[in-house]
Amino acid sequence: MKVSFIGSGNVATHLALALHNHGCTICDVWSRDYSHAQLLAGRVGARPTTNLDNLDRTADVFILAVSDDAIFDMALDLRLDSALVLHTSGATSMEVLKPISQRYGVLWSPQTFVRDVALEYAELPFCIEGCNKSTEHDIETLVKHISTHIYHTNHEQRQCLHLAAVFVNNFTNALYGVAQNICNQHDIPFEVLYTLIATTAQRVKWGDIRYQMTGPAVRDDRKTIDAHRRLLANDPDFLSLYDELTRIIQQRIRF
Amino acid sequence: MKVSFIGSGNVATHLALALHNHGCTICDVWSRDYSHAQLLAGRVGARPTTNLDNLDRTADVFILAVSDDAIFDMALDLRLDSALVLHTSGATSMEVLKPISQRYGVLWSPQTFVRDVALEYAELPFCIEGCNKSTEHDIETLVKHISTHIYHTNHEQRQCLHLAAVFVNNFTNALYGVAQNICNQHDIPFEVLYTLIATTAQRVKWGDIRYQMTGPAVRDDRKTIDAHRRLLANDPDFLSLYDELTRIIQQRIRF
Repeated sequence: MKVSFIGSGNVATHLALALHNHGCTICDVWSRDYSHAQLLAGRVGARPTTNLDNLDRTADVFILAVSDDAIFDMALDLRLDSALVLHTSGATSMEVLKPISQRYGVLWSPQTFVRDVALEYAELPFCIEGCNKSTEHDIETLVKHISTHIYHTNHEQRQCLHLAAVFVNNFTNALYGVAQNICNQHDIPFEVLYTLIATTAQRVKWGDIRYQMTGPAVRDDRKTIDAHRRLLANDPDFLSLYDELTRIIQQRIRF
Repeated sequence: MKVSFIGSGNVATHLALALHNHGCTICDVWSRDYSHAQLLAGRVGARPTTNLDNLDRTADVFILAVSDDAIFDMALDLRLDSALVLHTSGATSMEVLKPISQRYGVLWSPQTFVRDVALEYAELPFCIEGCNKSTEHDIETLVKHISTHIYHTNHEQRQCLHLAAVFVNNFTNALYGVAQNICNQHDIPFEVLYTLIATTAQRVKWGDIRYQMTGPAVRDDRKTIDAHRRLLANDPDFLSLYDELTRIIQQRIRF
């Protein structure tokens, strides 16, 4: 299978490496910045270019791994006949690709890709959507090179999953950041919390999260909650977050 | 070393098993409920009892692994001469143990213990505090049977760590619960998010969390934030939490 990439950022880099390592031929890597295109192309034996007109039209798949806004720009500039064209966005409808080709779809993984940090690709989940059944089948054939964790999700499901991903990634990170800030303020090494963070994350696999809630909020242990609120008295931002999360647990998460 | 346990719940069970497996003799296990005492005592070759007066006074260490409120009750009932007495609470001052013995302190692990779920004890962090240097040294000698991750924390630090633990455990679990709820509502298997949850948790070891923030809040990507807010329009609780966390990231967590 011959695959070309429009974009050379984190997602493009990981997908191109994963497909290259599993026997796909990467033809072209396009980027606005030639040195960026060159960097990724060099790693996967592809041809770098900054000109969409130079793309080898015989490639089977074109993957638009660019920012959400750039997908819309590309849809104005790129015209393909029958090649499969995919974007990699969790938040964007596949219909924006309709002007580019008759065969279009989405290949999105709910993961944060960091350029030089290896991932177990075989463990990565991929959410796919095609403009019709045969296209969706072709996308699945492509993704099977990388992973067997393939989910068929429509636009609404993908949007909701993108939102859920913000909760378990960005917002969870924000809580880790709050905890790190509290530790730093009191000269406590943050590493003390590493095993708790790890076991908490592992236990999501146990099933319904509501059954696993522990701590003062779910017990409505006012003494401990009040003690925590006193510790946060000088930090209205963190205090308000503490109250909001305690309220959510008491009203929505516990049984 | 001879150790007795007051309490037979999750923390007592894990500590008793860990110490027993590493060569300590567990003498007595006290519980208000004889069958509970018997259950744990049977697993560690100890004697079950419901009567504090029956405790073997020749034990070197007495560990009060009971609820915070029960620690105060015990301090009224239990009198030891020179044995080391410890509680296992993150939120309670060690001074409540002063009436019990001349040698007292704290042995607390920031972890949620579930009775029949094995833990890598050698990886567990323990926060210790003793009423004086020699007592603190004795506590360290005891804990070294189980783990080398030993931290000397005073009461204020332990309280703050307890608060930080609520953020990375209870509150993070609440966010997992929100994500699970969103997935369930839209017929999406929650397992799609397992690898994202795992990598997010692993990356706390990379250092300053603020440098690792990604997503719409830190980018101030209004288009995506507005799309997410529309998805939550029918759920004022989750919408208000979304706004609160977005605000915290924008005002406090990003650079």
